[in-house]
Amino acid sequence: MQRYFVPAATWSEQTIKIIGDDVHHIKRVMRFKVGDQIICSHPDGHAAICKITILDNNVVYVDIVEWLDQNVELPVEVTIAQGLPKADKLEMIVQKGTELGASNFIPFQASRSVVKWDEKRQDKKLKRLSKIVKEASEQSHRNKVPMIYPNQSLSELIDLASSYDFKVFAYEEEAKTSEYHSLSSVLKQVGEQQRIFVCIGPEGGFTEAEAVSLKDNGFQAIRLGPRILRTETASLYALACISYHFEEMRCN
Amino acid sequence: MQRYFVPAATWSEQTIKIIGDDVHHIKRVMRFKVGDQIICSHPDGHAAICKITILDNNVVYVDIVEWLDQNVELPVEVTIAQGLPKADKLEMIVQKGTELGASNFIPFQASRSVVKWDEKRQDKKLKRLSKIVKEASEQSHRNKVPMIYPNQSLSELIDLASSYDFKVFAYEEEAKTSEYHSLSSVLKQVGEQQRIFVCIGPEGGFTEAEAVSLKDNGFQAIRLGPRILRTETASLYALACISYHFEEMRCN
Repeated sequence: MQRYFVPAATWSEQTIKIIGDDVHHIKRVMRFKVGDQIICSHPDGHAAICKITILDNNVVYVDIVEWLDQNVELPVEVTIAQGLPKADKLEMIVQKGTELGASNFIPFQASRSVVKWDEKRQDKKLKRLSKIVKEASEQSHRNKVPMIYPNQSLSELIDLASSYDFKVFAYEEEAKTSEYHSLSSVLKQVGEQQRIFVCIGPEGGFTEAEAVSLKDNGFQAIRLGPRILRTETASLYALACISYHFEEMRCN
Repeated sequence: MQRYFVPAATWSEQTIKIIGDDVHHIKRVMRFKVGDQIICSHPDGHAAICKITILDNNVVYVDIVEWLDQNVELPVEVTIAQGLPKADKLEMIVQKGTELGASNFIPFQASRSVVKWDEKRQDKKLKRLSKIVKEASEQSHRNKVPMIYPNQSLSELIDLASSYDFKVFAYEEEAKTSEYHSLSSVLKQVGEQQRIFVCIGPEGGFTEAEAVSLKDNGFQAIRLGPRILRTETASLYALACISYHFEEMRCN
């Protein structure tokens, strides 16, 4: 069933009002009629099967039929901080990262980021990224839509990470030593509902100065397997491993 | 150090002759000079640090300086069979799948594949995909370049898979039941150097008839986590989990 994330303001006890882009999607893309059913997700993570009662030009009304108790959110909260990569790679990272269960995405200006975001560009980019995570959340049946942060500096990033239970960064040099730390050594210490901050460099990775600064602020350097991954593959690898560790290893 | 995969025919005991596209890459892209060092990989998986001795118009000669014993291949052999997806998704799948350690990629014509490959199109596609896996192998420092198979039917695919130790397919319906099988339940049975065949449907997944046919031929239906993944994310999830299980869980 098609899922829509509806802002809290338009929910009442029995009825939900849907406005904006979703109206176009419901009427023109999915071609739903009065009586058809959709799933509406509330920002608090709850979701309900709803029946369409009114299809108007710029507004759709639905009645709540049944509350769902399915929860497909990761049992830990994962934030992906991504050094600004080239081209449209960030779009791919947030789309796939949403499918894989990330809670937050924080782009940051790394030393080796070739791309720069000025204010005008940032507004446009953030709007586009927010649209991508909303659609990916709907498609992958997430209960919550991940948050996209504005672009940060490394020191701002370190501040943001200070409240997290575990902080790691992917460091290519770590993959080359025999004394490396793996993501699994960290995940084994993480308990339910704890928060993990995963920091990924841009193309070319972190500079030595950045690595020192991260280590000085409680970040552990880890490798993400023995092969060298492209920047846009690294966060997806980390998220898939976190899902496997917490969601799949514990079942038959 | 930059890595090149060089066909067996041009290796002699001390010297390697490099021809074709790599000459352009060495001279024009990397701008290497005589005396610079590169890594050359032999198709048998061995690799050596080599010094450039001659840079000619259409040929480069290098001397072997030191054999390397690093091996970053997955300890199990993974074949990804991918139902033909839309647009250029297959290119992304083989690029990322190579970084993540796959040994073979087999495209196949699934019932819900919208794309069709005629013979002319297939030749062009396979050439392009082969170039992508070669470059991704070099970039991720693989010892071997994965193989790309021509497009198969489902029954040809089932024949190809018959010699594998473990055969699984990602089935969306499996994710929805509470009695699901996870990838981890399979991986726990897999021993070193055994062969795993992972079959992923196109957009929309497998039809019920395809699922029955795969099950009748020894394929286990598995879920890939609780969220619904796009087709191009599914194989990457599976490969990352296999890497995590065999390469990362066993170290600190």
